[in-house]
Amino acid sequence: MCELLAMSANTPTSIRFSFTGLVERGGRTAHHGDGWGIGFYEGRRCRLFHDPVSSYRSEVARFVRECGIKSEIVISHIRKANRGRVSLANTHPFERELWGRSFVFAHNGQLKGIKRRPLRHYRPMGTTDSEHAFCWLMDRIRERFPRPPQRPAPLRHLIRECCEDLAGLGTFNMLFSDARELYVYCSTRLCWLTRRAPFGRASLRDAEVQVDFGLETTPDDVVTVIATEPLTVDETWNPMAHGELLVFRDGEVVLRNAGA
Amino acid sequence: MCELLAMSANTPTSIRFSFTGLVERGGRTAHHGDGWGIGFYEGRRCRLFHDPVSSYRSEVARFVRECGIKSEIVISHIRKANRGRVSLANTHPFERELWGRSFVFAHNGQLKGIKRRPLRHYRPMGTTDSEHAFCWLMDRIRERFPRPPQRPAPLRHLIRECCEDLAGLGTFNMLFSDARELYVYCSTRLCWLTRRAPFGRASLRDAEVQVDFGLETTPDDVVTVIATEPLTVDETWNPMAHGELLVFRDGEVVLRNAGA
Repeated sequence: MCELLAMSANTPTSIRFSFTGLVERGGRTAHHGDGWGIGFYEGRRCRLFHDPVSSYRSEVARFVRECGIKSEIVISHIRKANRGRVSLANTHPFERELWGRSFVFAHNGQLKGIKRRPLRHYRPMGTTDSEHAFCWLMDRIRERFPRPPQRPAPLRHLIRECCEDLAGLGTFNMLFSDARELYVYCSTRLCWLTRRAPFGRASLRDAEVQVDFGLETTPDDVVTVIATEPLTVDETWNPMAHGELLVFRDGEVVLRNAGA
Repeated sequence: MCELLAMSANTPTSIRFSFTGLVERGGRTAHHGDGWGIGFYEGRRCRLFHDPVSSYRSEVARFVRECGIKSEIVISHIRKANRGRVSLANTHPFERELWGRSFVFAHNGQLKGIKRRPLRHYRPMGTTDSEHAFCWLMDRIRERFPRPPQRPAPLRHLIRECCEDLAGLGTFNMLFSDARELYVYCSTRLCWLTRRAPFGRASLRDAEVQVDFGLETTPDDVVTVIATEPLTVDETWNPMAHGELLVFRDGEVVLRNAGA
């Protein structure tokens, strides 16, 4: 299975600590060696890094870890290829533009029959189920909202409907953003936690790394991290339910649709 | 003025040597310190790196220089901001998807009145003239060719028409690719050369770096480099004429439309 990692924060924040844990799973502590990618939003655009090699061996991953780019929305994915060969075109996250904003998507799971669904505005560059599902989702959003909706509720509602539809085709654990909010849909396995003052220490599960968040934050910071499996051993992670959709903005939950 | 750099080759080739010369101009030997970006095609998708800081100081530039990614089509840009503030959203190259392929664009110059032209399918994320022109160009291609044309000639013809139209608004030195061919339009200043066997040595103009291409190539390699100014002191660069369009594929000129 692939591993997902995301962050939503109310101030530009480095995801270095969590990313270090994730990278270890890309070929060292787990078998997800078929490429990885990460996107850091800066306003309406997302800065993406991809490498179609094991994250544990990746020069790009080492660089991303060291340079500590700060962002309010981050989406990352480490791939274990099920469908589609190992190549840049098949490496998550995927990105498309709508309304002059970058939309970014990462997924784990398989979606039976997704490729029979016709596409109109957006086309996959690679051969994964995931990118086809992303293009289908973007088509739905573009058709319903040729212009950006005034309020967030109708968009959230549409995305929830689409997620439930896609989850009916198989396994659909998804990270998605419209450059404003972070959407997280859980079909089988995802968990999350929010860090806020008073900040404590935490230790990674996959590497001998400890961090004292008190030294890296201000008292007003709110930082939520979402991952396939808990990344730390000494914090309480909230498991998501099957069929649950969470929407985050500025690190806070703004919509919670309980699943099964 | 911004600096442009591109490569077209018949085999995946590193652009490290030329990029080293370009990077020196981003804040050291010249004043282009407002961000930079580079895209390396791998099949239908393009791997992009952006950094909204001076390339000479950029950690990402150092990384890109050291890791030596190989590609058959590369497009790079170092920005001196004229229009639009310094931000990721305003950093070239720009990318959009059409026909399941990545289209990439970089530009130097200013285009008076370009923002009054209405856009339909593609919208800018930033505020530059350049990204607006790119979206307008992509709209034209998408409207004329909802599906990819069977032969390259009609697309080349349309792109040439669009370039001439845009050049009428001001200065339009452009690099553009549809993941197959590299389009280079010269409004005021661009030059190019093709390296092929027997390969010799070359010395950068902007740094004390020499390379022996004979050690890095095979006898069948054909590598064309395009730049705003000659990057080396000991090779013959071909200046482009005002209004000239060159189209490259696999390192060779496949279309040459003489300008004024």
